[in-house]
Amino acid sequence: MKSGISTKIDLLALYQEVRVQTNSLCKPLEIEDFVVQPVKDVSPIKWHLGHTTWFFETFVLKPNVASYKEYHPRYPFLFNSYYVSAGERWTRENRGQLTRPTVQEIFEYRDYVNQAMERFLSAGPVNSEVEDVVILGCNHEQQHQELFLYDIKRILGDNPLYPEYRREVADVEVSGLKFEWLSVSEGIYKVGFEGSDFHFDNEEGAHQVFLHEYAVGSQLVSNEDYLSFIKDGGYQNHLLWLSEGWDFINENNIMAPRYWSQGDGGKWGHYTLNGFEEINLFDPVCHVSYYEADAFARWKGCRLPTEQEWEVACNKYESEVPRGANFVENENFRPVKTEGFDFYGNVWEWTASPYAQYPYYDPPEGALGEYNGKFMVNQMVLRGGSYGTPRNHIRSTYRNFFHPHLRWLFAGIRLAKHI
Amino acid sequence: MKSGISTKIDLLALYQEVRVQTNSLCKPLEIEDFVVQPVKDVSPIKWHLGHTTWFFETFVLKPNVASYKEYHPRYPFLFNSYYVSAGERWTRENRGQLTRPTVQEIFEYRDYVNQAMERFLSAGPVNSEVEDVVILGCNHEQQHQELFLYDIKRILGDNPLYPEYRREVADVEVSGLKFEWLSVSEGIYKVGFEGSDFHFDNEEGAHQVFLHEYAVGSQLVSNEDYLSFIKDGGYQNHLLWLSEGWDFINENNIMAPRYWSQGDGGKWGHYTLNGFEEINLFDPVCHVSYYEADAFARWKGCRLPTEQEWEVACNKYESEVPRGANFVENENFRPVKTEGFDFYGNVWEWTASPYAQYPYYDPPEGALGEYNGKFMVNQMVLRGGSYGTPRNHIRSTYRNFFHPHLRWLFAGIRLAKHI
Amino acid sequence: MKSGISTKIDLLALYQEVRVQTNSLCKPLEIEDFVVQPVKDVSPIKWHLGHTTWFFETFVLKPNVASYKEYHPRYPFLFNSYYVSAGERWTRENRGQLTRPTVQEIFEYRDYVNQAMERFLSAGPVNSEVEDVVILGCNHEQQHQELFLYDIKRILGDNPLYPEYRREVADVEVSGLKFEWLSVSEGIYKVGFEGSDFHFDNEEGAHQVFLHEYAVGSQLVSNEDYLSFIKDGGYQNHLLWLSEGWDFINENNIMAPRYWSQGDGGKWGHYTLNGFEEINLFDPVCHVSYYEADAFARWKGCRLPTEQEWEVACNKYESEVPRGANFVENENFRPVKTEGFDFYGNVWEWTASPYAQYPYYDPPEGALGEYNGKFMVNQMVLRGGSYGTPRNHIRSTYRNFFHPHLRWLFAGIRLAKHI
Amino acid sequence: MKSGISTKIDLLALYQEVRVQTNSLCKPLEIEDFVVQPVKDVSPIKWHLGHTTWFFETFVLKPNVASYKEYHPRYPFLFNSYYVSAGERWTRENRGQLTRPTVQEIFEYRDYVNQAMERFLSAGPVNSEVEDVVILGCNHEQQHQELFLYDIKRILGDNPLYPEYRREVADVEVSGLKFEWLSVSEGIYKVGFEGSDFHFDNEEGAHQVFLHEYAVGSQLVSNEDYLSFIKDGGYQNHLLWLSEGWDFINENNIMAPRYWSQGDGGKWGHYTLNGFEEINLFDPVCHVSYYEADAFARWKGCRLPTEQEWEVACNKYESEVPRGANFVENENFRPVKTEGFDFYGNVWEWTASPYAQYPYYDPPEGALGEYNGKFMVNQMVLRGGSYGTPRNHIRSTYRNFFHPHLRWLFAGIRLAKHI
Repeated sequence: MKSGISTKIDLLALYQEVRVQTNSLCKPLEIEDFVVQPVKDVSPIKWHLGHTTWFFETFVLKPNVASYKEYHPRYPFLFNSYYVSAGERWTRENRGQLTRPTVQEIFEYRDYVNQAMERFLSAGPVNSEVEDVVILGCNHEQQHQELFLYDIKRILGDNPLYPEYRREVADVEVSGLKFEWLSVSEGIYKVGFEGSDFHFDNEEGAHQVFLHEYAVGSQLVSNEDYLSFIKDGGYQNHLLWLSEGWDFINENNIMAPRYWSQGDGGKWGHYTLNGFEEINLFDPVCHVSYYEADAFARWKGCRLPTEQEWEVACNKYESEVPRGANFVENENFRPVKTEGFDFYGNVWEWTASPYAQYPYYDPPEGALGEYNGKFMVNQMVLRGGSYGTPRNHIRSTYRNFFHPHLRWLFAGIRLAKHI
Repeated sequence: MKSGISTKIDLLALYQEVRVQTNSLCKPLEIEDFVVQPVKDVSPIKWHLGHTTWFFETFVLKPNVASYKEYHPRYPFLFNSYYVSAGERWTRENRGQLTRPTVQEIFEYRDYVNQAMERFLSAGPVNSEVEDVVILGCNHEQQHQELFLYDIKRILGDNPLYPEYRREVADVEVSGLKFEWLSVSEGIYKVGFEGSDFHFDNEEGAHQVFLHEYAVGSQLVSNEDYLSFIKDGGYQNHLLWLSEGWDFINENNIMAPRYWSQGDGGKWGHYTLNGFEEINLFDPVCHVSYYEADAFARWKGCRLPTEQEWEVACNKYESEVPRGANFVENENFRPVKTEGFDFYGNVWEWTASPYAQYPYYDPPEGALGEYNGKFMVNQMVLRGGSYGTPRNHIRSTYRNFFHPHLRWLFAGIRLAKHI
Repeated sequence: MKSGISTKIDLLALYQEVRVQTNSLCKPLEIEDFVVQPVKDVSPIKWHLGHTTWFFETFVLKPNVASYKEYHPRYPFLFNSYYVSAGERWTRENRGQLTRPTVQEIFEYRDYVNQAMERFLSAGPVNSEVEDVVILGCNHEQQHQELFLYDIKRILGDNPLYPEYRREVADVEVSGLKFEWLSVSEGIYKVGFEGSDFHFDNEEGAHQVFLHEYAVGSQLVSNEDYLSFIKDGGYQNHLLWLSEGWDFINENNIMAPRYWSQGDGGKWGHYTLNGFEEINLFDPVCHVSYYEADAFARWKGCRLPTEQEWEVACNKYESEVPRGANFVENENFRPVKTEGFDFYGNVWEWTASPYAQYPYYDPPEGALGEYNGKFMVNQMVLRGGSYGTPRNHIRSTYRNFFHPHLRWLFAGIRLAKHI
Repeated sequence: MKSGISTKIDLLALYQEVRVQTNSLCKPLEIEDFVVQPVKDVSPIKWHLGHTTWFFETFVLKPNVASYKEYHPRYPFLFNSYYVSAGERWTRENRGQLTRPTVQEIFEYRDYVNQAMERFLSAGPVNSEVEDVVILGCNHEQQHQELFLYDIKRILGDNPLYPEYRREVADVEVSGLKFEWLSVSEGIYKVGFEGSDFHFDNEEGAHQVFLHEYAVGSQLVSNEDYLSFIKDGGYQNHLLWLSEGWDFINENNIMAPRYWSQGDGGKWGHYTLNGFEEINLFDPVCHVSYYEADAFARWKGCRLPTEQEWEVACNKYESEVPRGANFVENENFRPVKTEGFDFYGNVWEWTASPYAQYPYYDPPEGALGEYNGKFMVNQMVLRGGSYGTPRNHIRSTYRNFFHPHLRWLFAGIRLAKHI
């Protein structure tokens, strides 16, 4: 999580930009939408608002601003997520039981911390350790901005009234994009983050890997492709599935991506942040679990890329600006641009790699060492970025990770194969 | 559920009074408080508002007002509780997942139905069958007013911020009330509702029972009494407990009534609708399960009264105005009066009687036959009334019922014994 | 549990007869059949053998025979069922995990205790308190003989090989039995056990009840009757069911009595202790839950009798020898006699009465006070007796009790109605 | 799963040797020990006997011996484990409910199949495809021999009587073994199986990997080492644990390896197949989960080796005979030899590698393709071998795999670090 050299001004601007961005995400919501927690993995929106604020209060203000007065004695208990080192917490699965503090009170908490942060960041230079934590806090809040979108889609998307969150418009007409195999030859490659810009600890430790020759698809798997899998009985053919995946889809009666449903005429539609819509055949398929991504790839006679393969191919085929989810800009780049937001990418891409530590992995001391490392088991790495990912999180070394059965994130499929 | 003769004016007034009362209960709440459902047994406050409105729409307006236009095609799905005959329902345990319709929208639904109901009730005489359903709907909403209070206490009371719901003031200083045994001699008695006033189907079917000589306490068990039980190791002595009760308290680590907690100095406090307060020793103990009531009685060498014993004793010892929870007005009557509300009584009283049908029980045809009868298993009868019970629900024949492990209702203990 | 006066010789003979009977039940079994526990409610057969032996060791030998040497220091831990007063226990749901002691070792334990008991009972008169406990121990073991049959049917009956336990022959050809309503007029009746013969504490406390006029069926509901209910869509009509019953059958996908299954041609068969057989239309329906019994009665426009109604009708209509499950011997008495056993009756009969204490109920002091009283919640009373019930347990005051969802016991339906 | 060239004689001898070996394992058992299933992961011993036999019947005899008559029409249903392609199965978690077929009947089934197999293997040459399946069947049965030991230890080890399975004698006095770091320099290495001997499909696909310089310990972590971790509060220090590991040990109240318990004087003992014994400080720690192995390594400032690091180090440091779990024979090799068995090794070693497919992985067609590949998610690779592992399974490329929370297998810890 080392950051490069930056000036005080930059820090303040960064902080303000991120904090304002979170507020913008809240605008379309009703107060009721901030409160509920449909399942453990989803947090109430208002909890995100409090938690990201608590992060700055706990890791920046309290240790560094002698005059800072804690806003409320119980808020640390309510807004700590999983930092055991930072003290007791309200249990995660009960976050949706708390009606107080109200949304209004949490915004007041945000304002209070914002003012203290702004005073602090305007007061003069901070040392590089503090700078690192401020930048980390901003990146942390941006990660929660993306979770915010997953969660609000989950909250609204199961409501039989299918409320619209906002109007999004894809800015490019897409159709008939050409699929090609992008090959990488055998050899030793370097993966992992190098340099002085911000990055997370889990991508640190640039190291060498040997890769046998392989290729990845230039396009993500589309809804049209995925419908072929469904129509071909993919969800009924056990030979395509990991054993735990087969159990998962059968126990949960899963026969299509999350949010999809079939109307009377057999036509597929799905809930989107715009409300309920028809499936667009040319869009990348989204809201599939790792199990489904893996089964689809097997059905195609392919496989998913490892995260190393993904990163090396991305580095080889991207143009100068790194952009993760999309390998060749000119012909097949279809990002969704969101009015007023700097989200970028299409969907995250499940890789074949379980989330594990890189050689030489060395998490920070103390509570912030709990940020990434303690989750390195039973989860799969995703690479790229989604239409909910802040642009500055899009880089070829970024390692996202989720449990293989989860489907509420914005995740899809890129194929790979040995050649 | 037969009602007596009443005039149109009365119906309208009754309807309006009940509906306004519900709105009054909402006043102290923040919007967030309307939304959550901490456990299956608790419903979101906004669901209560919608459900009681749906009742009038479904059972009064749709069948009787040809011009009535359903407010929203999905609301019946969202607001039906358990009337299988009335169509599909949103599952009970997921009521807390719905952020929409918003509180505001539900109040608009209430207004819409109120206007239609007021037009209907002002338009001329209705037949007695319709009249019965309107009165039932009002009593139904009053039952939900009491549940509203249980639920909001449960929602606010587990929040570590202990928010206050409202200021309640007991209007009588209580202390040193005299306990005496009120005896009833052996004989044949009549129990069950007789007459033409409103009553529920489950109390209908007045019939004779033979009772052996017995006595009931003139006072409810007080917090002071109950503290003695706790201090004497009542929660640790398995001989006092029903087997399922013993498992229940051990699996849930229960060592005191719901909402009680012991401070550092060993002093007991509890969450009340006023916020967190010290235990008042003279108040009746509240928020105990049937298991705890039963164990306490055994510890005292007594037992709980059967519902028949309760009713007969109540009829014998009450003064002219029936008032349920309190047997002898002059010296030991301690109702809590709530500003602006007509709640009456102290706490419901667990009886030793499992909830079962009376001889000649005959539920109504159709969906309304599901109101009471289908719950007649695995629950215990409570008698009396609580400080959350609308006054017109206080009558000696009223049969309340809950599962024996539940503690969020306002329930306490009256002792009985054979003599 | 008071017993009358009996001589030493009788006690010894009683003891030996009961103990031999248990051994006889074991003869058809393979060693493997003694070990497993398919669900919590079912105990391994070898546990029954050990537990009934532990009862005599704990409550007779240890307190009364100074020279008695405990057989094994860990057996009390393994074979105590639920007597908290008698010390720690192996958890009930894990009884099926214990492969040791072996069946052979448990039989050796039985022999050891038998010899000590026989020496004790042969040595001279015992006082009446001890006598009571010996008789209770014998009745206790007889209750376990019946549970033995429920359990072995459950163990073998779900095995796809459908192993036969034994050949049973009904000794009477049954067909075309005449159904009639047996009426009882309104009045005060006495129920509960009176006299000096053995009985359980829960049937003690003879007392008076007032009954309104009613009638009970002279015959149990037959398989033919029950098939009509199935064919009429009884399992699909929610109006017939208690709410918890409706949930129960839907969550467990129940559409017929336990052990029933429908062959390819639509013909119904069921597992019996003889192996898999066709349904005999004239037999009483068996292996229904209380929920199913209650729903069937409602479908017939009737109800189940209360336990008081059952007892009074039984006393009125039985001939001189009490025989519980069958009211009129001459024309419709169809007990199943089992070669070498003294079982008697057809099936237990669910009553409409939740299991609760009688007036003046007074359980014994100490561990034996846990025998019955602590189960008096959430269970329903059954009356009569089954083809697995030892003959001396058949009496009109005997109160059997089980949870309403259980179906592995031998239980059926008798109708009642008000007239 | 390709096997090399072998003659018919060899196949027969191999088959007979393996089948006899399984019978030998059964000798110390009582019939009761064959029947139970304490948890889903453990299968009844008699199920292992049937399942391994079913494998030969299903995959060798039925497809290749025209005259072969299926032994019993329901056995395929009872003894198929997880081969969806091979038809319906009895559910895994209910294997412990089946008392029939009896142990005796299953041995008869084994005899029947043995005779058919012996006739088949004696009758003349089989083609190489069949040969492969026979050899796979033998290796499959050997894997179940090891599971047999895990399972019987689990079955007997939780019994408060602590029954002895057999007397095992370690043949070497061990003490004061020297620990050293065995280093491997940076470079490209080959991993995975090459050659024509038998191996499983999951180790196939020899390929190159790049490894940075590292070292592994010459000795497994000993009980003494592990006790230091316990005494240092390792189980209480959240910073050492993966998040899911921390939850796992807290929810299950884990404070020591499986089967360990602390006596009154604080002395640690554990259940072994010899019965209950004191902990031998010099033995390798066993029965730890991956979570514990990982936490221990972090406590030591080290980590676990990846499976590639393990394999390369093993190949470098082993002497000519591959032996997996032990790297340097002369000074610190401590296999447990079991009288009459060819087990070899100490304990399996958790690696840091999640179980995933090798490049070019290509599972067989049909049911046997389900053998390994479909489990490649959420499990961790173990390398080496244990004192329950058949000797011919000990090879440096062998990939064992289990879920990270499991502790009933014979698994311990080898440390690694970067240098």
